[in-house]
Amino acid sequence: MEKAPDVGELTPPDRTLMGPGPSDVHPRVLRAMSTPLVGHLDPSFVEIMNEVQELLRYTFRTDNQWTIPVSGTGSASMEAAIGNLVEPGDTALVPTNGYFGGRMQSMAERAGGEVVHVDAPWGEPLDPADVEAAFDEHSIDVFGFVHAETSTGVKQPGVSELTDIAHSHDAYVIADTVTSLGGVELRVDEWDIDVAYSGPQKCLSCPPGASPLTLNDRAMDKVLSREEEPRSWYLDLSLLEGYWGEERAYHHTAPVTNVYALREALRLVAEEGIEARWERHLDVAGELKSGLEAMGLEMNAPDEYWLPSLNAVRVPSGVDDGAVIAHLLDEYDLEIASGLGDLSGEIWRIGCMGYSARPKNVEYVLSALADALEAEGYDTEQVTAAPSDD
Amino acid sequence: MEKAPDVGELTPPDRTLMGPGPSDVHPRVLRAMSTPLVGHLDPSFVEIMNEVQELLRYTFRTDNQWTIPVSGTGSASMEAAIGNLVEPGDTALVPTNGYFGGRMQSMAERAGGEVVHVDAPWGEPLDPADVEAAFDEHSIDVFGFVHAETSTGVKQPGVSELTDIAHSHDAYVIADTVTSLGGVELRVDEWDIDVAYSGPQKCLSCPPGASPLTLNDRAMDKVLSREEEPRSWYLDLSLLEGYWGEERAYHHTAPVTNVYALREALRLVAEEGIEARWERHLDVAGELKSGLEAMGLEMNAPDEYWLPSLNAVRVPSGVDDGAVIAHLLDEYDLEIASGLGDLSGEIWRIGCMGYSARPKNVEYVLSALADALEAEGYDTEQVTAAPSDD
Repeated sequence: MEKAPDVGELTPPDRTLMGPGPSDVHPRVLRAMSTPLVGHLDPSFVEIMNEVQELLRYTFRTDNQWTIPVSGTGSASMEAAIGNLVEPGDTALVPTNGYFGGRMQSMAERAGGEVVHVDAPWGEPLDPADVEAAFDEHSIDVFGFVHAETSTGVKQPGVSELTDIAHSHDAYVIADTVTSLGGVELRVDEWDIDVAYSGPQKCLSCPPGASPLTLNDRAMDKVLSREEEPRSWYLDLSLLEGYWGEERAYHHTAPVTNVYALREALRLVAEEGIEARWERHLDVAGELKSGLEAMGLEMNAPDEYWLPSLNAVRVPSGVDDGAVIAHLLDEYDLEIASGLGDLSGEIWRIGCMGYSARPKNVEYVLSALADALEAEGYDTEQVTAAPSDD
Repeated sequence: MEKAPDVGELTPPDRTLMGPGPSDVHPRVLRAMSTPLVGHLDPSFVEIMNEVQELLRYTFRTDNQWTIPVSGTGSASMEAAIGNLVEPGDTALVPTNGYFGGRMQSMAERAGGEVVHVDAPWGEPLDPADVEAAFDEHSIDVFGFVHAETSTGVKQPGVSELTDIAHSHDAYVIADTVTSLGGVELRVDEWDIDVAYSGPQKCLSCPPGASPLTLNDRAMDKVLSREEEPRSWYLDLSLLEGYWGEERAYHHTAPVTNVYALREALRLVAEEGIEARWERHLDVAGELKSGLEAMGLEMNAPDEYWLPSLNAVRVPSGVDDGAVIAHLLDEYDLEIASGLGDLSGEIWRIGCMGYSARPKNVEYVLSALADALEAEGYDTEQVTAAPSDD
């Protein structure tokens, strides 16, 4: 590598992001990212940190003191939650109904925990009776579940019922809210969730890099009274407490620009109002869903647990899912995603998140998808005409 | 947290950043950060990843295939290096001559390693004879040292001598190059360093959030043949290999915007030329050093191991170091930092890094510091006048 590489101007294509994230970023958030930096220990940055924490509490619907952005992408806040809550020898209960339960398992095991499962097929939510049965069978310390499964488009209903079961067995509850925070009804305090983690690049429409995490005092007490240090220094919440708490002591250099961006993204949430924002996602994703169904396509999840922010649509038989995705990207600069794991080849995943959750984007997806399907020999005209009552 | 917080427009003060990082960010890098996002699996992003890897190799002076930005700030790339290289039962040799040796120790212990020390006082480099003695006394698997100690302003001379000692004992060498990469001579391949990690917010003048890491094949072989998984899922290099390697498989959502920024910051390195950039840091920091000495101030490090990117200056007796720092921040919007640990209260740390390493900034620091010192009763006029030959 003697010679300097000749790399040109940054000119990425102008995509419309309707996949599982990142979503389209609001122009105000992009502008915030070009703001010159202050130091991570600057008194003015301490004020910005306080504002971000306050805005995060509002968005999570919590009064938790321990509400911070973790310095990394969503998986970093996930590992901060699991790696600090799960101590060596603890038993963690994790779900099998999607990709992210598997990741929970890997993180819990690396933290020194034992893992047991509550089973449900990919594409279905957890049944409270199965959760109850798992608690009856095992002595469980930490229960993790996924509120909004990005891999399957399933929203877990009845969260309070799950947290009640866990708490009646003295366990702690960790909720994956990566694809719900800021887009789908989520009430951390009212639903009695002990720990929730999320990412900024889904319904908050903020570039990835600083990821929301909240813990109630009960969970933080467990973290602060661990016998062994967490296995990550970078994600050790007892050390992060020194920086985000009263002391404001140096731990690591915070990603200043990502915190700026998150602040602006959360201001947009506050301006819109969190409940209005949930409503918008329901409305706009509802249009998307109707449009897809009008083309004869079938949603993978029934209405009771349909996830507005991530729409899993079944691939019609005879259609090549990858060819449709490539057609949309090549001809329309439009990103949607394929299925993962057990649903690989069976579904498309169409996001409807944050700034991407706009009628304009929905119309674009629907017309582009109709074209792509027709290119693949699927006749959307015929299907849409058939069931009409007019 | 029922009501939406009323948080105003983002208006941080306009600081000049001459502390230990972040440094001032080049306007082109700030602009790159306001570029709309593509997905982290977009074919166009794969191309950007390749470019960033190529530019990182150029900057590290290496041909290492395993050269990537880690999705987090400098401490994340540090933990990725240590947490993957150090296996449970391994013995790690770490230095005691500054803040970051202590952090290495904590990370190595959390990874399951035993830690032994090579001692040197804060403010001095390691003596190769002491390193040799440590290797003679212990069976060491991994040797970590700090090339550029941000806490003390010391540059470790004779790196090749240290790597020779380690390799003659079949150990792996990890170098902390957080405050040298892109600003101070660093030759990973020529000096036979197995693993080097860095941060983007020092001599690369890029906002923190995606942090350089390079491993040679020998080190990567150790990582890929571990008996136990690394204790972090997020920083597991065998999984990151799937994303940054041939396969381009999903691991986690990369911080797209930070990668954009790093690309632009590294393009600026390539345009300037890496050796010319080292030369500029020497020249500009040399002016700073002369100016400080002309005020009668004393550098903490002698010339043999003076670190141009981080100038540790002794606080004159009778002067309150914190009052001077506050004066510079309040009156001049200028950031410099105090000492840490053993040097707390004894030094100021003045960075001269990347886009901050400009004559304009040096002149500003010198005149502002003269004013602040005078406000504290230190007479710079008298001192500067005394030794004159005119």
